[in-house]
Amino acid sequence: MPSIKALQPLPPGSTIGILGGGQLGRMLSLAAARLGFRTHIYSDDPDSPAFEVTSRFTHGGYADLPHLETFAQQVDVVTYEFENVPVEAARHIGKLVPVRPGAKALEVAQDRLVEKEFVAGLGIPVAPFAAISHRRDLIAALERFNAPSILKTRRLGYDGKGQLSLAPASDAAAAVAALGHRAAILEQRLDFVSETSVIVARAVDGTFATYDCPANTHAGSILRRSIVPSGLPTPAVAEAQRLAHAIADALDYVGVLAVEMFYMGPAAKPALVVNEIAPRVHNSGHWTIDACGCSQFENHIRAVAGWPLGSPARHSDAEMLNLIGDEAHTWADLAAEPGMCIHLYGKREAREGRKMGHATRLKPRTGV
Amino acid sequence: MPSIKALQPLPPGSTIGILGGGQLGRMLSLAAARLGFRTHIYSDDPDSPAFEVTSRFTHGGYADLPHLETFAQQVDVVTYEFENVPVEAARHIGKLVPVRPGAKALEVAQDRLVEKEFVAGLGIPVAPFAAISHRRDLIAALERFNAPSILKTRRLGYDGKGQLSLAPASDAAAAVAALGHRAAILEQRLDFVSETSVIVARAVDGTFATYDCPANTHAGSILRRSIVPSGLPTPAVAEAQRLAHAIADALDYVGVLAVEMFYMGPAAKPALVVNEIAPRVHNSGHWTIDACGCSQFENHIRAVAGWPLGSPARHSDAEMLNLIGDEAHTWADLAAEPGMCIHLYGKREAREGRKMGHATRLKPRTGV
Repeated sequence: MPSIKALQPLPPGSTIGILGGGQLGRMLSLAAARLGFRTHIYSDDPDSPAFEVTSRFTHGGYADLPHLETFAQQVDVVTYEFENVPVEAARHIGKLVPVRPGAKALEVAQDRLVEKEFVAGLGIPVAPFAAISHRRDLIAALERFNAPSILKTRRLGYDGKGQLSLAPASDAAAAVAALGHRAAILEQRLDFVSETSVIVARAVDGTFATYDCPANTHAGSILRRSIVPSGLPTPAVAEAQRLAHAIADALDYVGVLAVEMFYMGPAAKPALVVNEIAPRVHNSGHWTIDACGCSQFENHIRAVAGWPLGSPARHSDAEMLNLIGDEAHTWADLAAEPGMCIHLYGKREAREGRKMGHATRLKPRTGV
Repeated sequence: MPSIKALQPLPPGSTIGILGGGQLGRMLSLAAARLGFRTHIYSDDPDSPAFEVTSRFTHGGYADLPHLETFAQQVDVVTYEFENVPVEAARHIGKLVPVRPGAKALEVAQDRLVEKEFVAGLGIPVAPFAAISHRRDLIAALERFNAPSILKTRRLGYDGKGQLSLAPASDAAAAVAALGHRAAILEQRLDFVSETSVIVARAVDGTFATYDCPANTHAGSILRRSIVPSGLPTPAVAEAQRLAHAIADALDYVGVLAVEMFYMGPAAKPALVVNEIAPRVHNSGHWTIDACGCSQFENHIRAVAGWPLGSPARHSDAEMLNLIGDEAHTWADLAAEPGMCIHLYGKREAREGRKMGHATRLKPRTGV
C-alpha cells in the first residue's frame, strides 16, 4: 500500500532514479531536467549514453541487490527504461521507494506467454498462440495453425532477436534447437493491413494522456519509421486507444505504456489485434518530442513524479526515421534538410542494427 | 585566421565547452545533447544549474587563465552563455580552440558606450546617449536631452542593476555618487509603443536563421513575458530583422545574437530603435524551445559547431512567462494547465528577482 508521501507530487529538485542508461534513459533524463528534476541513472554498461546528461550515475548489475539498495536510498522514485529489469530487483527496491510503472508490468511484459495470456484474459484480441516447451508442442501447434508463424523465446528477445519464421511444414526439432531449447511461444503470423501503436501515459490518479496513433513500418523486426497522422480510420484509432487504456487500467499502471497493434482492415473482425506491450517509453513515440508540446518522455516523468499529465495534443504532422548503424553517418545531410529534427544518442560505435539516433521530419498539421 | 579544421562541422561526439553554468548554459547543454554532442561546462559557481545536465564540468574563475587553458584543451569549440566573460580570457582561449561568437562580440556588448557607438556607427538608430565620466558630463547631457533619461553603468549591469531613472532637473552629483562614480552612459528615455527583439542565428558561412519577433514586456527592468505573434506590422518586422543581420554581419558573428529594440509606431521615423544587443541566447527567445522545430539553443549549438542552421519556422503561437523568485512555487498550478510547457532551472533557492524558470503557453498558429 503506497504511503501518503508516495501520492504527493514530487517537487522540482527531487531526484528521479532511472534503471537503464540507453537512449530511452537519456531522453527521459533530458525531459526530467526540463522540469527541474535531478536524475540518477543506474546501468550495467559503463559506457551508457545516459551517463552523459546526468550528474549522478551508478554502474552496477540489475541483480545486485545491495548496489540497487544504495541507489534507491538516494532517489525519490525509481522508473526504468527497459522491461528486462529483474522483477525481484524491482520488488526489492519497491520496499524503499516507489517503483513506477511497478513490478507487475515487468512481470507481464518480460514473458511473451504471460503477456499474451494477460492481454487475452482482458478479452482483447491477440494472434493465435501456443506455449512451446518441447518439440512435440511445436509439432502440434504448427499443425493446428496450419499457417505461417513465428517462434519466439518467451524471454529476453527484442528487435527480432530470438525469433524464427516457420512454415507449417518446418522442421520442429531444428527450430527448437535453433532457439537453444529455451521456453518459447509460437504465434500465428497475421495478414495485417498496417502496424500501429498506442503511446499512452497514465497518471497516479488513473487519468490518461493518449497520443495520436502512428503508422509504424518495421524491417527485419526493427522499427524504421513512424508517421502521424497514420491514415487509420477514426473508429480504429478510438478502439486502439480503448484497448490500451484497458491494459493500463488492468496493470494499475503509472507512466507511459506502449501497445503495439496490427490493423487488420476496416471490414475485419476484430479490426485490431494486440501484438505486444512495452512498459516504458517507446521508439514509435519518439516523434512526440518534436510534434507535441509535451513528449512521451516528459509525460512519463510527470506520471512517475505524481504530476498531472501534459497535453498530448499534436501541433504538427511528423515522420520519424530511425538511424540504425551506419545511417547515423548521414547526420550532415539530415542537418541540412529544413524541418528535420535530429536526435543522436551519443553512442560511440555505430554497430550494425544498433539504434544510433532518429530524425523527425515536421510538417504543418493536417488531420488526425 | 581560422584553420581549415575550424571550418569543418564538428561531428557528433565532439565536446562543446560552455563558459557559464546558469540556465542558459543548462539549456544549451540540453540542446547539445540532443544532437549527440558532449558538453563541458566551466563556471565560477560551484552550485551551477548546468552542472546537473553534463558529465564534465570545471569550477573555476573566468580570469583564471591556466584553469581556462586546461578546459580549452579538453573541448573542440568554446562558447559562452553571458557577455561578461573577460575579453582577455576569450582571446587567450581562442589561441587554442575556436571561440564562438568570439572576442569582438564580447568587447562590444560588455560596454554600453562601445555598444551604442558600434550600433550607431552602422547607421542604425539608437536612443540619444552621452558618455558620463564626471558630474559635469551628466549636467551637460541632462540639459541637452531635456527629457527623462536613464543613467547606466557602462559595464556589468543586467536586469536593471546599475541603472537610475533621471529627470532633467535631477541632482547630477547624487546620481553619479549613487552609481559609485563608475563610468556610465546617459540614455534618453524613449516614448516607444512596444518592445521587441530579434533572435537570429548566424552560421560559420554567414547564413541566417531568424526567428519571428516577439512582443516583450518588462517590469522592473526584468523581462516578464514574450508573445508571438507580436502584432507588429510586417514591414517593421522585416526592418527589425534587417538591422539585426547588419549587426551580426559587422561582428562576423557565429551563434545566436539577440537585438532588443523599441518599436516607435507605424508613423514614426525611425520606426525601430536598437536598445541593446546580447551576444548569446536570450530570454526573449525561450519560447522557441516549444514553438519551433529548432530552438534558439539548438541553433546556437549548430552554429558554433559549424553545422547548417535549423529552420526557425514557428509551428505554434506562444506566450512565454518568466517565473521569477517565488513564482516558481506555482509549478503545480502550471503543470495542471493544458498546453503549458514548463521549464525549471534546478536552482535550489528562490531568491527575489532570480529567474527560476519559465513557462510557455502554446496555441495553434495564427499569423506572423
